[in-house]
Amino acid sequence: MKAIVPAALAASLAGTAFAQSNVTVFGVVDLAVTRGSGSISNQTGLTSGQLAASRLAFKGTEDLGNGLKAGFWLEAGINADTGTGQSTNTNNQTTGFVKNGGFTFNRRSHLSLGGNWGEIRLGRDFVPQYWNIAHYDPLDLSGVGTSQVLNSSIGGPTLVRASNSISYLYGHGFNAAAIGYGPGGFSGSGFQFQAMGYLGENPSGSATSKDGNGYGLRALYSTGNFTVSGATGRTRYAAGDTRQSNVGASYNLGVVELMGMYEWDRNGPLKARGWLAGGRVPVGVGSIRVAYSRYDSDAAGSPTAKKWAVGYVHPLSKRTALYTTFAHVSNDGPSASALNGAVTAPGKSSNGFDLGIKHSF
Amino acid sequence: MKAIVPAALAASLAGTAFAQSNVTVFGVVDLAVTRGSGSISNQTGLTSGQLAASRLAFKGTEDLGNGLKAGFWLEAGINADTGTGQSTNTNNQTTGFVKNGGFTFNRRSHLSLGGNWGEIRLGRDFVPQYWNIAHYDPLDLSGVGTSQVLNSSIGGPTLVRASNSISYLYGHGFNAAAIGYGPGGFSGSGFQFQAMGYLGENPSGSATSKDGNGYGLRALYSTGNFTVSGATGRTRYAAGDTRQSNVGASYNLGVVELMGMYEWDRNGPLKARGWLAGGRVPVGVGSIRVAYSRYDSDAAGSPTAKKWAVGYVHPLSKRTALYTTFAHVSNDGPSASALNGAVTAPGKSSNGFDLGIKHSF
Amino acid sequence: MKAIVPAALAASLAGTAFAQSNVTVFGVVDLAVTRGSGSISNQTGLTSGQLAASRLAFKGTEDLGNGLKAGFWLEAGINADTGTGQSTNTNNQTTGFVKNGGFTFNRRSHLSLGGNWGEIRLGRDFVPQYWNIAHYDPLDLSGVGTSQVLNSSIGGPTLVRASNSISYLYGHGFNAAAIGYGPGGFSGSGFQFQAMGYLGENPSGSATSKDGNGYGLRALYSTGNFTVSGATGRTRYAAGDTRQSNVGASYNLGVVELMGMYEWDRNGPLKARGWLAGGRVPVGVGSIRVAYSRYDSDAAGSPTAKKWAVGYVHPLSKRTALYTTFAHVSNDGPSASALNGAVTAPGKSSNGFDLGIKHSF
Repeated sequence: MKAIVPAALAASLAGTAFAQSNVTVFGVVDLAVTRGSGSISNQTGLTSGQLAASRLAFKGTEDLGNGLKAGFWLEAGINADTGTGQSTNTNNQTTGFVKNGGFTFNRRSHLSLGGNWGEIRLGRDFVPQYWNIAHYDPLDLSGVGTSQVLNSSIGGPTLVRASNSISYLYGHGFNAAAIGYGPGGFSGSGFQFQAMGYLGENPSGSATSKDGNGYGLRALYSTGNFTVSGATGRTRYAAGDTRQSNVGASYNLGVVELMGMYEWDRNGPLKARGWLAGGRVPVGVGSIRVAYSRYDSDAAGSPTAKKWAVGYVHPLSKRTALYTTFAHVSNDGPSASALNGAVTAPGKSSNGFDLGIKHSF
Repeated sequence: MKAIVPAALAASLAGTAFAQSNVTVFGVVDLAVTRGSGSISNQTGLTSGQLAASRLAFKGTEDLGNGLKAGFWLEAGINADTGTGQSTNTNNQTTGFVKNGGFTFNRRSHLSLGGNWGEIRLGRDFVPQYWNIAHYDPLDLSGVGTSQVLNSSIGGPTLVRASNSISYLYGHGFNAAAIGYGPGGFSGSGFQFQAMGYLGENPSGSATSKDGNGYGLRALYSTGNFTVSGATGRTRYAAGDTRQSNVGASYNLGVVELMGMYEWDRNGPLKARGWLAGGRVPVGVGSIRVAYSRYDSDAAGSPTAKKWAVGYVHPLSKRTALYTTFAHVSNDGPSASALNGAVTAPGKSSNGFDLGIKHSF
Repeated sequence: MKAIVPAALAASLAGTAFAQSNVTVFGVVDLAVTRGSGSISNQTGLTSGQLAASRLAFKGTEDLGNGLKAGFWLEAGINADTGTGQSTNTNNQTTGFVKNGGFTFNRRSHLSLGGNWGEIRLGRDFVPQYWNIAHYDPLDLSGVGTSQVLNSSIGGPTLVRASNSISYLYGHGFNAAAIGYGPGGFSGSGFQFQAMGYLGENPSGSATSKDGNGYGLRALYSTGNFTVSGATGRTRYAAGDTRQSNVGASYNLGVVELMGMYEWDRNGPLKARGWLAGGRVPVGVGSIRVAYSRYDSDAAGSPTAKKWAVGYVHPLSKRTALYTTFAHVSNDGPSASALNGAVTAPGKSSNGFDLGIKHSF
């Protein structure tokens, strides 16, 4: 008769019994010489992640049979210029930021179960309402060219990601980054959908019990050359909910890929709106990227920021690319957006550029 | 004549010369929807590690010839719901907790040298006196069902692990998790033993020079279906030593695996005691787990906590399982134990449940 | 017609598309029983990295064709006795230290592009002016035997490493640790060179705008048995620049490998100097290491520290070694250097020893 105790015990010590690895270690190291100038001060630096966020990540999938799969994804942002890790947020509220320089799986930390019917995903992940800002920015929402719709946003703690979340994703590759993305995530034409709910995990019985609770929805349709997507999300706070809605579209004409998006935001009584229009032009193996973005809110003095950005990416391989970007932001009213560490006075402008290398592994 | 300088220099830059990896990357991502209710407040959340602690770990072994082996183990606890790391302790004292959200190898960080004669292990590891609380809890000492012997313990900073430790382990698989555990750790019948000493690393010449110094001992005997184990440990503090002793046994009848343990604790002049009785019943591919645990101390008002827990684990594969647990804790005197983030008044009870997925990689 | 949008989007999500790993996971776990005694207090401990720093690292290289290569290196120091990570510095200034116990890539975090013409390296790395202190210390600049030229140094925040750096390296193995080091880094005879510039990243327009900006240069020549190297570096601070220059040489006579170095330091108006002489003697498979080092500054009272160190390293394999070291440091004037956690009064001496195991993976 076999020993059942050890088997039972071993089951509780999960992970130790598997000699061969089920893990893919991957990531990005991206470093650039950066310069920003403003009316008050300038800054020169070596900066991490100006084309794609530097990161170290671990992921894997398991085929469970009967069309069912399990998967996990642990992704840590790193500042490769200094070796530090990045901030995460534990409760989707301003009290929850953890920023001490240590390595955290701030970018993604999730577990999935899925099949042909879609994917259930639990953990920390990007909110659905974030993706249209990212996907429809020709400059990859990175570096000095980052869309002003993100940089000036009034979106609050769940603008980009949420912890304690549960998502349902339909029509994308299992355990892939997000709908509209990644291997198998966007093959030709089709419909994709994500719905997410997330929790602030506050105790019941107080005015702020529901702070940090929220949801996001996103749908995307693609014909291959043409995509259109809409998203909306809302996070509850006793001081006033944050709400974010946007639409985006892209059309690939071959000689140029055009894209644009529009955003409506609320943060309590405050309203704001922004948009981006731009495109990418293939030039030999490389790509020229141009965008104009703008964001303005109803706050006192009607702060408005407007940005022009132009960049060029030159791939040395599928994994490695050289890039450069130039951007100019101008401000109206009390807005004081500035680039690459520069400081500029309200209503003044700022210039910046990046010159860097991105390497994926 | 060959260049000796480079070789000598290379020896000091250990690790860089080995192109093929000697490392197994492994871990667990475990996430559950959790709910706790108490007399003061309730909480709903998405929580990490309710069946097995979420973790990312790196380990390896090397055959040195002549029956000698070397091995290492670096294991970091992670909160997969938020991407944060977990606290460790540098000196086995209350002053030594490092809890800032960054990733640390808080769970294990050790180096081993061993052979047929046993294993010498240096670094941070679980203390021997912890294991009988864990091994004889049918609910794997995890989640809402965790034995009250752990949850109410007066055990102090070295209740679970110690830093700056040296252990001798006999009769278990080399570089395995612990005696009575893991691959090769418990094959059929036999005798296993662990002795550990650990240091608080205080300077000499003060009243607290020996704070955090301690030891633990554990012996286990198994016939395959029957196991019995005893352990004791003590950690020195000028304010009063902590002491922990326990015994446990399990008997596998096939249709049910019964288990139980008893614990005696001291923290300075304070005494406490606890016990658990429970079992696991195989149901198809799954397992029903039931436990009653109780802990009471001699503190003013005789605080006592009593818990019923029942759970079901449904494996989808060797690596992935669905699970659910329900627990009820009742309190006497000033005891105010509550479950899953709920808060309850002294003497009142609390309920909680988990519904989750565990995935090992 | 193929879908270009997904490809463009995929390019921005670098890393997710590569199923096979391009990463080598490697590191060191090194733990020793340590003891230090001084005139005020003694300390006994279990200490990490007394022969080689304990670390966990990730690296990889990519062949880009046409003789061009890309590579990355992310290396985190760990305290294996407690599971904590180590401090890094974000701005090469005393304000930039990040020391909270979390895991950071404090040791190295860099990206490289190179060919026969050399290597361009961006990120965080050792400064060139550090290496002659390390390479010409027979005790590997580790543990209780560490050269006093490092231990007493007035070198400031960029004594060992710099963040935000760009280097050019010539004549060493691509993406290897440093010139004069590692696989292919020192094959027989030849000339090697490194020049580094680094940035403090302060805003313009203030007195401290250039704080943390600096550079380092190092050249090394080897005939195989004989090496000679010189380095210099300077970091700017409004309070006074730090400057560091040194020369070193080694000669391998077969029965003994002799080495020595001399160092000149400045920190604002303060000057200091140090030197080391020592060697390694092969004994069977092992190696005896002996060094005398000394450091003194012009500070009030002329603080001077002098150290004798002798050690023995016994390899069990290429990856694993036992070692022991004994050291004695004596102080003159206000110098109060002490070993392994001991505390000694100014002008008094201190003794220490290490007994440990180093395991590379």
